[in-house]
Amino acid sequence: MKRLSVIDSAFLMLESRETPMHVGGFNLFTLPEGANEQEFLHGLADNMRTAESFQSPFGDKLKVGRMGMLGPLFWEPDTSLDLEYHIRHSALPKPGRFRELFALVSRLHGTLLDRNRPLWEMHLIEGLENNQFAVYSKFHHAAIDGVRSIHLTQSMYSADPRERIHDSPLSMAARERYRAALDIPPPSEAQLRNVAEMLKSTFDSSGHMLGALRQYAGAWTGSNESLTVPWKKVPASSINTRVDGARRFVAQSWPFARIRAVGRALDGTFNDAVLAMCSGALRTFLLNHGELPSESLKSMVPVSLRRPGDIDSSNAVGAISADLATNVKDPIRRFHKIKASMAAGKAMFQDMSSSEAALFLQLIQLPGLALVPLGLATRFPPYSTVISNVPGPRQPMYWNGARLEGIYPASIVTEGIAMNITLVTYDTQVDFGVIGCRRSLPQIQRMIDYLEDSLVELEDAAGISWAGAAKAAPEAKPKAKPKAKAKPKAKSKPKAKAKPKAKAKPKAKAKPKAKAKPKAKAKPKAKAKPKAKAKPKAKAKPKAKAKPKAKVRPKSRSK
Amino acid sequence: MKRLSVIDSAFLMLESRETPMHVGGFNLFTLPEGANEQEFLHGLADNMRTAESFQSPFGDKLKVGRMGMLGPLFWEPDTSLDLEYHIRHSALPKPGRFRELFALVSRLHGTLLDRNRPLWEMHLIEGLENNQFAVYSKFHHAAIDGVRSIHLTQSMYSADPRERIHDSPLSMAARERYRAALDIPPPSEAQLRNVAEMLKSTFDSSGHMLGALRQYAGAWTGSNESLTVPWKKVPASSINTRVDGARRFVAQSWPFARIRAVGRALDGTFNDAVLAMCSGALRTFLLNHGELPSESLKSMVPVSLRRPGDIDSSNAVGAISADLATNVKDPIRRFHKIKASMAAGKAMFQDMSSSEAALFLQLIQLPGLALVPLGLATRFPPYSTVISNVPGPRQPMYWNGARLEGIYPASIVTEGIAMNITLVTYDTQVDFGVIGCRRSLPQIQRMIDYLEDSLVELEDAAGISWAGAAKAAPEAKPKAKPKAKAKPKAKSKPKAKAKPKAKAKPKAKAKPKAKAKPKAKAKPKAKAKPKAKAKPKAKAKPKAKAKPKAKVRPKSRSK
Repeated sequence: MKRLSVIDSAFLMLESRETPMHVGGFNLFTLPEGANEQEFLHGLADNMRTAESFQSPFGDKLKVGRMGMLGPLFWEPDTSLDLEYHIRHSALPKPGRFRELFALVSRLHGTLLDRNRPLWEMHLIEGLENNQFAVYSKFHHAAIDGVRSIHLTQSMYSADPRERIHDSPLSMAARERYRAALDIPPPSEAQLRNVAEMLKSTFDSSGHMLGALRQYAGAWTGSNESLTVPWKKVPASSINTRVDGARRFVAQSWPFARIRAVGRALDGTFNDAVLAMCSGALRTFLLNHGELPSESLKSMVPVSLRRPGDIDSSNAVGAISADLATNVKDPIRRFHKIKASMAAGKAMFQDMSSSEAALFLQLIQLPGLALVPLGLATRFPPYSTVISNVPGPRQPMYWNGARLEGIYPASIVTEGIAMNITLVTYDTQVDFGVIGCRRSLPQIQRMIDYLEDSLVELEDAAGISWAGAAKAAPEAKPKAKPKAKAKPKAKSKPKAKAKPKAKAKPKAKAKPKAKAKPKAKAKPKAKAKPKAKAKPKAKAKPKAKAKPKAKVRPKSRSK
Repeated sequence: MKRLSVIDSAFLMLESRETPMHVGGFNLFTLPEGANEQEFLHGLADNMRTAESFQSPFGDKLKVGRMGMLGPLFWEPDTSLDLEYHIRHSALPKPGRFRELFALVSRLHGTLLDRNRPLWEMHLIEGLENNQFAVYSKFHHAAIDGVRSIHLTQSMYSADPRERIHDSPLSMAARERYRAALDIPPPSEAQLRNVAEMLKSTFDSSGHMLGALRQYAGAWTGSNESLTVPWKKVPASSINTRVDGARRFVAQSWPFARIRAVGRALDGTFNDAVLAMCSGALRTFLLNHGELPSESLKSMVPVSLRRPGDIDSSNAVGAISADLATNVKDPIRRFHKIKASMAAGKAMFQDMSSSEAALFLQLIQLPGLALVPLGLATRFPPYSTVISNVPGPRQPMYWNGARLEGIYPASIVTEGIAMNITLVTYDTQVDFGVIGCRRSLPQIQRMIDYLEDSLVELEDAAGISWAGAAKAAPEAKPKAKPKAKAKPKAKSKPKAKAKPKAKAKPKAKAKPKAKAKPKAKAKPKAKAKPKAKAKPKAKAKPKAKAKPKAKVRPKSRSK
């Protein structure tokens, strides 16, 4: 039996019929050449069911102690695991477009997981057009976070289209195979000592913690203008309202290089560009509803506190509160305000160890979660929305020969925060999943168009253009223009994406020595020098992860 | 706003994630000749969505007063009704057999309805073999009971295969059309006076109530041996156990005349024969698990307290507790013990008015429901199982030309009562739906075989045989032998049924003057003389409903 952490337990305690606390999404695949859909999917299901010992969380169910849900909670092996229950075959009604897929995923994401069983489900979905199929899966957030779910995804699939994996992806064997492939050396004597010190430090009133709390206090009192803190000046909007249990889900991909180009052109990070893109879309969404607040929306931006090589922790995640500058019309000024806000948020973690950071985040997050049962979250939302960036595999992946075309995440909607935008970087693309409360945000599918419009607005303002990029840098020519499969309504569909083939691939692997840092991916100004490399003791610094070396800097175009 | 009755509210208060309190099932249809499945189903959905004013419960959502769920509850119109949410398109994975349909229905039946919306869902299911499609619907039991759901079914469909209904079946117009077709005269002055008297009587300590309570007390003290009361000698068994939220569902049809023949041959009713058939199946089920209790199982048998012509009340249902005599090996003796127990149960209602009966049933039922939240139901189940017989339309029905092939009900599993058997009489057949807790009753699908075996056992014991019946009475020759569509595995599928064409149809319509009586359908010994006819004041007597005149008495065959 393994005891759940306070944060993991909180996701269970705060769950209601209106706010299911599971994360998930769908993975899109193309069937291998000549494969029969029905046989292939049954083959995948049968293979998964061969597992005998299960990697977490597939085989573990919740055990509630004598004090009930408010007391300590544990994971224990489910001795009567019913895999037929967890692994399901589903189908789309005709014509099997993404519209039908989104409707099914919206529904599946709106129902609660059964707490009497391990907290996950997997649906093999047939009936898609174009020789594709989808796998929707959901996991309780108490059992898994976005990064862990990506590790699970990677451990299930292979980078080799010819590879056939014979052990069940749910099994311990799959986990061991994956861990071995990560090529991480066992912890050294020195590292172990560091971990011990970190553990000790969580019980210290260390100087670092004091520094962070001082900065945090400064934000409240106004002495630190860039740092946004929860609840401070969070405006009311239609996104911040009561929610019920039904969901709407849409998904779409954009080329990674395209968004990164915006970040570079404006001297910011990929993540800054993502936030600016979302900010513009939210601005349009609210403007079109005639209710853009004069105060800027604030977004929670989860950051990973996971140590490289740690593929097991369920929730190694903290949060920065970013000012989205939705009240700023000029896209360049908006971008820079967001960038400054993110930098201030990350600076706070700079001198903290990962465990200090985790403790700190528990301190500032939990009061927000506690508002939910008190019914106050809609009146005092700690943030306006959540925008979460989860790093996925940076190369094409295959499941027994079926090409993984995209990883579209569906996350959590909570009381007072009716929309969540989560994105996964996969291969050369960025896969967005937008989920919202079905009742409060009936037009959430328009966000896909608004995101595209916002990206174009940023490109125009920065004097770059994506179509131009390909011309300027022939080695980065799109592998395929928006595919023929994309129908007239293509823009709102995941496959409607230009896939650039950036020659030099960003390095996918995390450096083993850069421990537990909030990952600000592809930070252009770091010029490929991860600062943490030589430091023996892990400090929580924003990590310049895997700086891509591709010369895809697009030619400027003045308008 | 309409206030919910105590019983209706109880279904909401007692609901949990483990025990959803909705009823439903699937209707099976054959597409009209030459129809395109996708177009036809979208046509049905579009037609339903045209409604502007809704008949109950389609347009009403729950309103909780200031005292919360424990205070009074109300129905109020949902001003932002989202029909896209309630009416859904689904599809079966290939090969689209009944097996895949049962799996989907099991899943759909295991999720809770959204209390922020009107408490119903309807799923148009495509992808079935043999040019068929299915419509799964679910309604909260607080909003509807089995009889009302059959009225809804009938109001949606037509007896004329050529009829195309243009008003939405969800609309008030559909309800009015149906009500007019029922041809019930408006209540007379005398009837209104009777209703007033009945209302008054619910506040009296009337003699009838006293008589019933006296009988009830007699059963507890042993002075009335035939009358079974809740909790009295209910044995422990694997059916009476903790449940969780997941379900297993199976369905199958039998010819009405075949089951009725058993009842007649043994001088009992159709309903006695149904109970004996279920009893034998349960006996085999428990024997095969090596755990047949020495005490007999007791079944709750709901009886309708609905007045003919009352198509609106949500829960006009009471209950008799029947001794299933599962500890009796001899099928004839078992049959007679069941029959005696049912007669004693019904006699108790004989001299009560419908409102007295309702009040009485609330008195004896509610303590059982109250056990559930106290966690005592598994230790002291008030019954072993529930066997419910819902009268459906007695002629073939059509939905815009699509023939309704069967009405397969899925009911409620509660804490301590992990199996429910509900049957609907439709056209010339009886459609059984068996639902159980997925975890506690993993082999519930075997009940279909056991029911057939049990029916054969009763036929053998009574010296009759179904195959022989057709030969002996040529006018009752089966219209179609088990259809060609029925595959090798036919026995566990709803279509694997012999459809006899009984020339003289049982009268489908309820007599307007026979008010509010527990309906014991097709009671053979009543020789077509509904006793209530001449009585001015409605008494709660078992009604000899619509005695079939077909001479289908099968020739006896000694073995």
